[in-house]
Amino acid sequence: MAAAAPTSAAAAPSPVSSCVGGGGVARLLLRSPARLPFASAATAARPRGRPPATALRAARAAPDLVEQSVNTIRFLAVDAVEKAQSGHPGLPMGCAPLGHVLFDEFLRFNPKNPAWFDRDRFVLSAGHGCMLQYALLHLAGYDSVTMDDLKAFRQWRSRTPGHPENFETPGVEVTTGPLGQGFANAVGLALAEKHLAARFNKTDLEIVDHYTYVIVGDGCQMEGVSHEAASLAGHWGLGKLIAFYDDNHISIDGDTDIAFTEDVLARYEALGWHTIWVQNGNTGYDDIRAAIKEAKGTKDKPTLIKVTTTIGFGSPNKANTYKVHGSALGSKEVEATRSNLRWLHKPFHVPDEVKRHWSHHIAEGAALEAEWNAKFAEYEKKYCQEAAELKSIISGELPSGWDNALTTYSPESPPDATRNLSQQCLNSLAIVLPGFIGGSADLASSNMTLLKMFGDFQRDSPEGRNIRFGVREHGMGAISNGIAVHSPGLIPYCATFFVFTDYMRAAIRLSALSDSRVIFVMTHDSIGLGEDGPTHQPVEQLFSLRAMPNTLMLRPADGNETSGAYKVAVLNSKRPSILALSRQKLPQLKGTSVDAVSKGGYTISDNSSGNKPDLILIATGSEVEIAEKAADELRKDGRTVRVVSLVCWELFEEQPEKYKESVLPSEVTSRISIEAGVTFGWEKYVGQKGRAIGIDRFGASAPAGKLYQELGLTVENVIAVAKTL
Amino acid sequence: MAAAAPTSAAAAPSPVSSCVGGGGVARLLLRSPARLPFASAATAARPRGRPPATALRAARAAPDLVEQSVNTIRFLAVDAVEKAQSGHPGLPMGCAPLGHVLFDEFLRFNPKNPAWFDRDRFVLSAGHGCMLQYALLHLAGYDSVTMDDLKAFRQWRSRTPGHPENFETPGVEVTTGPLGQGFANAVGLALAEKHLAARFNKTDLEIVDHYTYVIVGDGCQMEGVSHEAASLAGHWGLGKLIAFYDDNHISIDGDTDIAFTEDVLARYEALGWHTIWVQNGNTGYDDIRAAIKEAKGTKDKPTLIKVTTTIGFGSPNKANTYKVHGSALGSKEVEATRSNLRWLHKPFHVPDEVKRHWSHHIAEGAALEAEWNAKFAEYEKKYCQEAAELKSIISGELPSGWDNALTTYSPESPPDATRNLSQQCLNSLAIVLPGFIGGSADLASSNMTLLKMFGDFQRDSPEGRNIRFGVREHGMGAISNGIAVHSPGLIPYCATFFVFTDYMRAAIRLSALSDSRVIFVMTHDSIGLGEDGPTHQPVEQLFSLRAMPNTLMLRPADGNETSGAYKVAVLNSKRPSILALSRQKLPQLKGTSVDAVSKGGYTISDNSSGNKPDLILIATGSEVEIAEKAADELRKDGRTVRVVSLVCWELFEEQPEKYKESVLPSEVTSRISIEAGVTFGWEKYVGQKGRAIGIDRFGASAPAGKLYQELGLTVENVIAVAKTL
Repeated sequence: MAAAAPTSAAAAPSPVSSCVGGGGVARLLLRSPARLPFASAATAARPRGRPPATALRAARAAPDLVEQSVNTIRFLAVDAVEKAQSGHPGLPMGCAPLGHVLFDEFLRFNPKNPAWFDRDRFVLSAGHGCMLQYALLHLAGYDSVTMDDLKAFRQWRSRTPGHPENFETPGVEVTTGPLGQGFANAVGLALAEKHLAARFNKTDLEIVDHYTYVIVGDGCQMEGVSHEAASLAGHWGLGKLIAFYDDNHISIDGDTDIAFTEDVLARYEALGWHTIWVQNGNTGYDDIRAAIKEAKGTKDKPTLIKVTTTIGFGSPNKANTYKVHGSALGSKEVEATRSNLRWLHKPFHVPDEVKRHWSHHIAEGAALEAEWNAKFAEYEKKYCQEAAELKSIISGELPSGWDNALTTYSPESPPDATRNLSQQCLNSLAIVLPGFIGGSADLASSNMTLLKMFGDFQRDSPEGRNIRFGVREHGMGAISNGIAVHSPGLIPYCATFFVFTDYMRAAIRLSALSDSRVIFVMTHDSIGLGEDGPTHQPVEQLFSLRAMPNTLMLRPADGNETSGAYKVAVLNSKRPSILALSRQKLPQLKGTSVDAVSKGGYTISDNSSGNKPDLILIATGSEVEIAEKAADELRKDGRTVRVVSLVCWELFEEQPEKYKESVLPSEVTSRISIEAGVTFGWEKYVGQKGRAIGIDRFGASAPAGKLYQELGLTVENVIAVAKTL
Repeated sequence: MAAAAPTSAAAAPSPVSSCVGGGGVARLLLRSPARLPFASAATAARPRGRPPATALRAARAAPDLVEQSVNTIRFLAVDAVEKAQSGHPGLPMGCAPLGHVLFDEFLRFNPKNPAWFDRDRFVLSAGHGCMLQYALLHLAGYDSVTMDDLKAFRQWRSRTPGHPENFETPGVEVTTGPLGQGFANAVGLALAEKHLAARFNKTDLEIVDHYTYVIVGDGCQMEGVSHEAASLAGHWGLGKLIAFYDDNHISIDGDTDIAFTEDVLARYEALGWHTIWVQNGNTGYDDIRAAIKEAKGTKDKPTLIKVTTTIGFGSPNKANTYKVHGSALGSKEVEATRSNLRWLHKPFHVPDEVKRHWSHHIAEGAALEAEWNAKFAEYEKKYCQEAAELKSIISGELPSGWDNALTTYSPESPPDATRNLSQQCLNSLAIVLPGFIGGSADLASSNMTLLKMFGDFQRDSPEGRNIRFGVREHGMGAISNGIAVHSPGLIPYCATFFVFTDYMRAAIRLSALSDSRVIFVMTHDSIGLGEDGPTHQPVEQLFSLRAMPNTLMLRPADGNETSGAYKVAVLNSKRPSILALSRQKLPQLKGTSVDAVSKGGYTISDNSSGNKPDLILIATGSEVEIAEKAADELRKDGRTVRVVSLVCWELFEEQPEKYKESVLPSEVTSRISIEAGVTFGWEKYVGQKGRAIGIDRFGASAPAGKLYQELGLTVENVIAVAKTL
């Protein structure tokens, strides 16, 4: 289909056709609803008449059993770190009481189906303390963390790596370690819950209802990314977000007094949080319980519970020092700690009564999920339309034909900036993809990211799908990561100027490492933004992001390629996509194609035959226009010239050799690249006999046209260079 | 000199020899003190008997003259943006009253010598409002901003670019625009002042005494980097830092209510700041004055003055809306604004009485500097040792022979991690370079960055030279930028794990763009860090930073190269250097050299003759050892093999072609690169016939040796690949 003016394929803001018959069967666009995770045999609906899952919850463990359980957690951590001779025993030893109470008494989960949709989410933002999480997952009955896994802590190919990794260990919700990120991910998870609850819950059927818990340390609190996310969580009133601040007063360089003396609780209050202080996190179990209850009862604000603990609790000589933060205790101190805590067991011992007590979570988890499945079956009957949308979000199945929503363009279509063409895509996709949600870091009107048919996600309108991140790029990226891992069908996008990927690079890297489909909509992608000058002009960002593994860096040249870039971004569900988009208008080119983008690079014009042009011009984005015009001129002189749009290097590299050779025949060494960025890296495609035209310096403040002229990104310059080859 | 064990050249913590004679002449190591900027004829010492500079301060302008001055500022901004048809009029229109009061009545500066050491520093963190700063610099008599410059706002090669750029416009202290950075830079400037004051002031002679003022907007407040810096400023008690928060309630996407509802003043109080609220920033001149006085009187805490203003004040139809933030008003609205504010002048008009009033700053500034020069002359007589150190810091002249402090190594020197060898350099340099100061983001004991002979820079020990940044990488980078631009001889270094350059990339970019010599000490530079896993293992960072203009990315292989990297870093006073250093031990290699590092790449071993080896192995850092071992094996088989250490690509590229050809002869196409990072980019040096050995994926959690083995970074693999060429 070729449309001169952007038109959206779907008229109504619904991804599925309307339900047929009175409360009857939805004509789902979903391809294979039978494969939805919540429909598995193992988690069948609770037969009528059975007691509710809450009744299956074991009586709270007696105090001495709690103490045993807590010491089990402590020593699993101590022993695993000791065996690996590497790791962080201090946090697990200090936070074991909190960990026990939270996992055993509050957290709702099904250990045999870590992907159950309505589970509570738990994030260990202080990821170095991962042995706490592994010990808890093990006790709780997750198959992903067996005793053998605990013994293989931090070893090659184990499921218990040195920091929690969601792609290695089912039950780990997000990948943490880089401090502050997990906290911001938790804000994203809580946002997703609040949003989905607002969209799908009915007065008679609360189908989305879970909490997000996160443990943060002093380090997380110091990081700016956590502050950005905390400010937003307070603004949004994320009442079901509960953060535990492990206040142990020790970081790697010693007492936090040397660098961190702010009043954390007062700060969070200023950010609109409810705060609680548990002064004795080491043995004050009832205080921890009371705090969590109070937090759960606080519906209009997120809660920060400061839990004062002793790092390395129980270690007679190293507790409360930095020495227990990131090193094995050493065999002597391990023995001293065993003796001190009267834990005279062999390494990795789990007492039978502890095992027995924790085993109830398997039955309870199954019952929780079965109850929810029964509720969902009822929901589906009553609200078939909503159920279909929610199913798509839970499963990640894309509605069939969703990509028809993407507009194609012909050369007659009006020139436009790719940021505007991107807005067309965003608005079309949001209609057909129920999990499409996102926003900008205070640049919606420049990034062109507003979804016009939806309202804002706000405290009192959480059903809205436009997220207003404020000027908080790093928090935006990390929150988007949290949204992406909440449910396979949630597709977050987030936007700022391309140069400000520098502010959020740590979050982008975690999207890539965590196999998360986040779409980074990055406009103003070159000196073409003009007068704002070099602080705002990306020149090295394309390469810096092309270097990142498992990331697609796309720079579309026009409308077709912008649509194609979005198609690629949505289909690549296990990696992030970054779209570099122009501020300035670009023509709709003749040879571009929506589908060719998936190949990463392709010929858009050529007057040669036999795969042997005299010259190949390779360009991306806004410079493809320059390449095309230069090619036209050169062809007039009788040369055969091919123009290649290399819209995504990573995808091109993944093509078969034969295809690559058909686009860039190795025999043809006369090659020129044209890209408004550093030339560093282009040697890969232009080779040692070719030439790269680009900008090997920072930009400057001036009108865009003047900059292109002065910095040599012109048709004339391409022709001049071509003549030297 | 070859020393097996690291030794420092200087024994006492002083960069200059002790003064000779009773209060006599210092035997300075400085090369040319005569060229010190404060010794210029134009700023000669105040002759005895003359009135003090404060007496030259003109009487405060009468209220109607203030109003005229304020409107002059407003309309210079309006007119310049209108002429450029690009820019941000809203902030200057709203902040003109604050700008007038601050520059005319409080700021101490010498417009004819913007580099005068003891000037107050002013930073416009909300850099988009730069026309405010340009208008003020113009009125104040700076030669850098003439009327012609104002009329060339945002044009090619003008000194009035779209955001303030310190390298374009004398009088602009730091380059701002990316939000939040300028605020953190200001914290660095204030840190520098507090530190130098503590080191050099005497009870009878206060030779360092100036304030740092900064204007931040809502956007700056939302950014995590400003929060990190604010927390540190409160912790350090930077009493001479005064921040104005332009509270205008508008950001690009509209009212800040959509994303920013925290209680900013309460937050800053929690961070240990003094806070003041000026409720009427539009016309409340006396309130502004009182607030600044109160802030100056608050010695133990930094002060945040929230100044509530109306963005675009005076524009009848656009004030208090996002429309006036970042676009020209349009001729119609300009006229309406002129009429509304009764400013019936032509564009760019400066009334004579306003000119006359502001002209007093030229005499006053000269007198201020002359007074200070006289004071310094007295200081020099009494405290020659300190004066010599301070001169070096003010001028940036390096003491002669400073580089003798750097240790050289022989192959017999014990193997060591380059992070440890780096500590040796840091400790040696801090003794001979009086402006050497820095620290780590809570990893001092891992980054090995502690200066053992100095104490911590803290609230009550600001003379200390170890800065404890806490877990705040981004703030650390931006604060270091502020320190670097405070005085030419301040050489800040800052440290974290190499992978966390991702957290501070926006600050690193501003070091590069601002020509700032910041030394980024980045340890744990590869999968060689082992068990912490992929979240902590850099693989793409080398390339992502090699792509950044005006930045030196160095990866030394052993002790000599580490010393050489520091030599390069200190000598390159107009760009930042990033040192990637190993966690693991490395041998001292035979062919390495301190001085060769300045060439970026060089041959460290070769058994060929005639510049035509069979094979060239190119490696960096920890992989040079692997290359050397592989070369040894291959040579046993009769092949001629050269090993090249490519320690800094940027420096190598700057060498003459002849030199480059002598290291990497184009005739030799059998080339293998070995680097524990992505291979992307190595095509540049291995060419299309060579092979790059690296890691094109994220790392993994396992012991380092295992990772090198599993990921193919082994001598065996290099030999196997060599055999295929």
